[in-house]
Amino acid sequence: MIRFSMIGAASNAGGEMLRMMINHPETELAYVADGFSSGLHITEVHPALQGFYDAVLLSDSEEDVETILNGTDVLFLAVNPGNVFPIAEKALAKGVKVIDFGADIRFRDSNVWEQWYKVKCDYPQMCRDAVYSIPEIWRDQIKGKSLISNPGCYPTASALGLYPFIDNHLIEKDSVIVEAVSGTTGAGRRPDFSKLHMVQDGNFKAYGVAGHRHTPEIEQSIEMIGGEPSKIIFTPHLAPMPRGIHVTIYGNLKRPMTDEEIYELYVKYYKDEPFVFPHKAGDWPNTKWTVATNHCHLAAAYEPRTQRIIICSVIDNIGKGAAGQAIQNMNIIFGLEETTGLKLAPTFP
Amino acid sequence: MIRFSMIGAASNAGGEMLRMMINHPETELAYVADGFSSGLHITEVHPALQGFYDAVLLSDSEEDVETILNGTDVLFLAVNPGNVFPIAEKALAKGVKVIDFGADIRFRDSNVWEQWYKVKCDYPQMCRDAVYSIPEIWRDQIKGKSLISNPGCYPTASALGLYPFIDNHLIEKDSVIVEAVSGTTGAGRRPDFSKLHMVQDGNFKAYGVAGHRHTPEIEQSIEMIGGEPSKIIFTPHLAPMPRGIHVTIYGNLKRPMTDEEIYELYVKYYKDEPFVFPHKAGDWPNTKWTVATNHCHLAAAYEPRTQRIIICSVIDNIGKGAAGQAIQNMNIIFGLEETTGLKLAPTFP
Amino acid sequence: MIRFSMIGAASNAGGEMLRMMINHPETELAYVADGFSSGLHITEVHPALQGFYDAVLLSDSEEDVETILNGTDVLFLAVNPGNVFPIAEKALAKGVKVIDFGADIRFRDSNVWEQWYKVKCDYPQMCRDAVYSIPEIWRDQIKGKSLISNPGCYPTASALGLYPFIDNHLIEKDSVIVEAVSGTTGAGRRPDFSKLHMVQDGNFKAYGVAGHRHTPEIEQSIEMIGGEPSKIIFTPHLAPMPRGIHVTIYGNLKRPMTDEEIYELYVKYYKDEPFVFPHKAGDWPNTKWTVATNHCHLAAAYEPRTQRIIICSVIDNIGKGAAGQAIQNMNIIFGLEETTGLKLAPTFP
Amino acid sequence: MIRFSMIGAASNAGGEMLRMMINHPETELAYVADGFSSGLHITEVHPALQGFYDAVLLSDSEEDVETILNGTDVLFLAVNPGNVFPIAEKALAKGVKVIDFGADIRFRDSNVWEQWYKVKCDYPQMCRDAVYSIPEIWRDQIKGKSLISNPGCYPTASALGLYPFIDNHLIEKDSVIVEAVSGTTGAGRRPDFSKLHMVQDGNFKAYGVAGHRHTPEIEQSIEMIGGEPSKIIFTPHLAPMPRGIHVTIYGNLKRPMTDEEIYELYVKYYKDEPFVFPHKAGDWPNTKWTVATNHCHLAAAYEPRTQRIIICSVIDNIGKGAAGQAIQNMNIIFGLEETTGLKLAPTFP
Repeated sequence: MIRFSMIGAASNAGGEMLRMMINHPETELAYVADGFSSGLHITEVHPALQGFYDAVLLSDSEEDVETILNGTDVLFLAVNPGNVFPIAEKALAKGVKVIDFGADIRFRDSNVWEQWYKVKCDYPQMCRDAVYSIPEIWRDQIKGKSLISNPGCYPTASALGLYPFIDNHLIEKDSVIVEAVSGTTGAGRRPDFSKLHMVQDGNFKAYGVAGHRHTPEIEQSIEMIGGEPSKIIFTPHLAPMPRGIHVTIYGNLKRPMTDEEIYELYVKYYKDEPFVFPHKAGDWPNTKWTVATNHCHLAAAYEPRTQRIIICSVIDNIGKGAAGQAIQNMNIIFGLEETTGLKLAPTFP
Repeated sequence: MIRFSMIGAASNAGGEMLRMMINHPETELAYVADGFSSGLHITEVHPALQGFYDAVLLSDSEEDVETILNGTDVLFLAVNPGNVFPIAEKALAKGVKVIDFGADIRFRDSNVWEQWYKVKCDYPQMCRDAVYSIPEIWRDQIKGKSLISNPGCYPTASALGLYPFIDNHLIEKDSVIVEAVSGTTGAGRRPDFSKLHMVQDGNFKAYGVAGHRHTPEIEQSIEMIGGEPSKIIFTPHLAPMPRGIHVTIYGNLKRPMTDEEIYELYVKYYKDEPFVFPHKAGDWPNTKWTVATNHCHLAAAYEPRTQRIIICSVIDNIGKGAAGQAIQNMNIIFGLEETTGLKLAPTFP
Repeated sequence: MIRFSMIGAASNAGGEMLRMMINHPETELAYVADGFSSGLHITEVHPALQGFYDAVLLSDSEEDVETILNGTDVLFLAVNPGNVFPIAEKALAKGVKVIDFGADIRFRDSNVWEQWYKVKCDYPQMCRDAVYSIPEIWRDQIKGKSLISNPGCYPTASALGLYPFIDNHLIEKDSVIVEAVSGTTGAGRRPDFSKLHMVQDGNFKAYGVAGHRHTPEIEQSIEMIGGEPSKIIFTPHLAPMPRGIHVTIYGNLKRPMTDEEIYELYVKYYKDEPFVFPHKAGDWPNTKWTVATNHCHLAAAYEPRTQRIIICSVIDNIGKGAAGQAIQNMNIIFGLEETTGLKLAPTFP
Repeated sequence: MIRFSMIGAASNAGGEMLRMMINHPETELAYVADGFSSGLHITEVHPALQGFYDAVLLSDSEEDVETILNGTDVLFLAVNPGNVFPIAEKALAKGVKVIDFGADIRFRDSNVWEQWYKVKCDYPQMCRDAVYSIPEIWRDQIKGKSLISNPGCYPTASALGLYPFIDNHLIEKDSVIVEAVSGTTGAGRRPDFSKLHMVQDGNFKAYGVAGHRHTPEIEQSIEMIGGEPSKIIFTPHLAPMPRGIHVTIYGNLKRPMTDEEIYELYVKYYKDEPFVFPHKAGDWPNTKWTVATNHCHLAAAYEPRTQRIIICSVIDNIGKGAAGQAIQNMNIIFGLEETTGLKLAPTFP
């Protein structure tokens, strides 16, 4: 059995990790820890886990980290910017594999991280060593690796939608616009007025316009896939639902395509992928098809009047956008079948 | 492997059955059928099942029923009142076990069914032979049985909340009031104006006041547990959420009890039950703790000013209230561990 | 023009007061104040009021209260328990009329308030002088009065539903159970985890079981109407919608009634009331029919098997349950037509 | 008093018209009619209007239309494509003013209508005579006119957001992308599975991608404002809320602008507009600020990395997007103050 632990386990992503792991046949929980909620029972922060786990949250102190690392095979991290590096360094030294949910090690070039996250990086080599992995695109690169960067939710939905078109150099440089919508779990757990049910129920709004930190991550994905270095626009919004990411992506095509051709391209890339479901134009994906899963549904259409492609891609922000993908990455680096523990159908209706 | 089939598979309960069975290690789908949606692919009526099942819905014609029965070990039924009997008769003759989601065989005394459902019963013996099973109360009675009546959603939440108090003769005859709230899946799938999102979002209302058909079913449960034959009031409401049942039950206690005594009584009855979670008074259960599971959470308090007990009990109406309990019953009659395939934590948040 | 001011204007009730007053032809805003949010522009706490008011919140300091009272004809108060008395004393001395949204002066017998609210009352005479007013029941008692206690939201919905039956001595003493559901504005504005959209969306739960402070207020209403002093049970719940109160009231009838008789009784009492709408049994009221209004919709049925009446009554908790009723009371004490400014149809759908 | 009538009064826009007219001091209802719901009482289709109107829906037969026209000063129409022309022709002949909610007379060039709506137009002159009016942009053109085309909801939000930038030729031809989100009232009242509460609650999805009929209407607005004839992309989505339109508009700027410059330009255009509220970049508008009003809130930012502008503009789809704007247009053509009856603050929270 693989012993897994998580620091940052009181987060939404942490709760979903633990929920998904319940039926994973090859793992067992070692420790949970959290910088803010140490000392609480895990079911106090995640009432959904009543009946499944009996554990108290450790802290992220050096001593507790030491305890955790001594009994752990794989460590999941969801910690504040900058805190990943010292923990990961110790973990790797002890042979513990690390999968990070945050942004610290997402950028190969740590200057990008410093610029967008306003934190100084003292571990640029660790950033270069870490492997950023959406398995459907880069699974070959993580086999045998020990330090994995788990992608952001918006970038995951975006990269899966764009992949075949970037890979075939079909989209003009600097033409991509990612228009994105998230459920309210995406705003995190810290209570404030704007997140109250009475305020957000029935409400829709943009946030982080023209400057959200997932922008450079999507740009890096485009370049990693083989596209030209390019500038994109990314605009997130909040919709009144707990879960779900919907991205609508626009790009100028270099040549006209038919909707059938687009669909066939998706099928070619994803027909053997257990978690990615292409649909024909017109059969636009619903976010609710992905709730509580590791799935991505997508479809695209050609807009002949303006020679643009319009891509719709949906995931669960804390499923494929966080916990699900982390487990998928874990399965790969431990040599397990990629779908182990992840045969999860959505809660619908 | 147990080959299961379902007639009425296009219902909400049918969709949840198929969803929960995905990770059941001892079953495999034989056939799906539906009186209204035959000919459709199962993922056309249940988009959530994309990627998990590849099956076309048969009809409920005699020919299709024959086909189904020849390849099935256990048949789940969710059909219109009166339609269960001829299908079940054939199934039992072929040695196929039957678990029914409807009300046809819920009443030992078929006169009760005739009176509340306004349908003539030509199979009173079948009603007497069928076993009505909330496993936490009556599991001993279904071992080895072939015809199981799966209880209604409201009666399940109600009986689990009342069980220890009725069993100990603590509640006065005719004093029980069951005030119940359901999510909108409880109203079924047939589209009408009152069920539209724009109408029901932000809305709360009563329905079926002073005459809902789950009333005699709850009364029968009380009597089956060992209480006196008694009259209850049951009032259902619809809340603007897709899933969940919340019942608040009032009853006059024959003697005062402390909140601690009440909690201890619940613990005594349910401490070894994997699906029932007692809470102390004050820690009132949330319906969202049960979404997509086979769980029941409950708590109760004594109201000393009026000598009444107030019980809150919550389940997922299509989980423990339908599909989950059906699978639990199936596990029992096939001699499997009762929790097989049902270690499901709720989708939260 | 009547100059109105409000202390506690940053509350949900305060926002609704200001919203409803926009089209009141006989009033103008003098001052807004708030103990917690002083110094903020009113549109910072109530973005809905953008374009309608240009005012900064004063504090509840003695100095600011003095300023307010010098320019105010009627003062609305929504302040912490105990704070009403000194402010009201000064206001009345200056001839400023006072309408209070809180509980301080709701109980004629200040011992009841002390017992349930755990605050010592130094102004028992003020409690005896204040007039508690649901206008449909007690409008005759407030003409010419200066100190009005505006009833709570749950007690308003309950008293309007019970009024004809208590007034005719039809219900047995100590048999009343008020089962109540509120939208999330009822939980107030202070952020905490349980009120987050992601937590409460899709959730239903009880709170304050067997001890909520609206219990004695409903009991007092029953006695004021002319019923016997009696003990009731009141159980509130939260539903996932921003606004709305739904109460389902149970009581043992002293004699059988037909549903028609019940409806006629409601019609007799409410046919000339502009804000109360009786419906026949079966046409159960929707909370959404009342959103943003001063309306109450109600219906009731007789349950012959147990000789109980079941009453459903709905209002908007911050409309008829707070701001609307306060304006209605203000209209009366200033000799205006009671509907002035209150011809408000609900936001539907 | 202006006698108003509406054909298509059973629609969502019809219900909102009647709701908003309740407090309009210069109008009185003459007739309501509806092609599908004739014979029903208006409160059967719009329960929210209980207590305000006592009228039975006429049909849209020739005879009923004749009756309506003989007692009406202004006729509002929400009828099926193609049905406007014969009714409007008769109305105008009798001196009845007409304000149409549909698309029949929205296009000066009836060929555009024929092409996108697939209906043959036999009244091209009527299309040329009709005046399309978002009052904030074109109010001067409708004074004294008798046939008004009330714009679509998406085009209204879009044109108000784009107006200052198109008017100043700041945006490159063919670069505009309108990414739009609507509440579920936008999908109309005809029940189907996809519109059920249980399906759409918690769901987000695109529809009508690359071909929605509001596309040419937005293009016409751009040209009418003075922009070059151009091709835009318009992509609508449905969010799980009853009301609200949010558009996020992208366009390539011909020259860099600062966020301050953008805000000042909005202020210059809208500072005297009672229904349009500009906000600074960062203070992104919430749809809930507009529910049940005739308001538009908007803000925009410059994205320097790609030289694009990002505009967010929100309205209530059946308020400023339908009924509110129709009343505003009516006020103008009858010489009333434009805000008459429209001082409506949103239902919030």
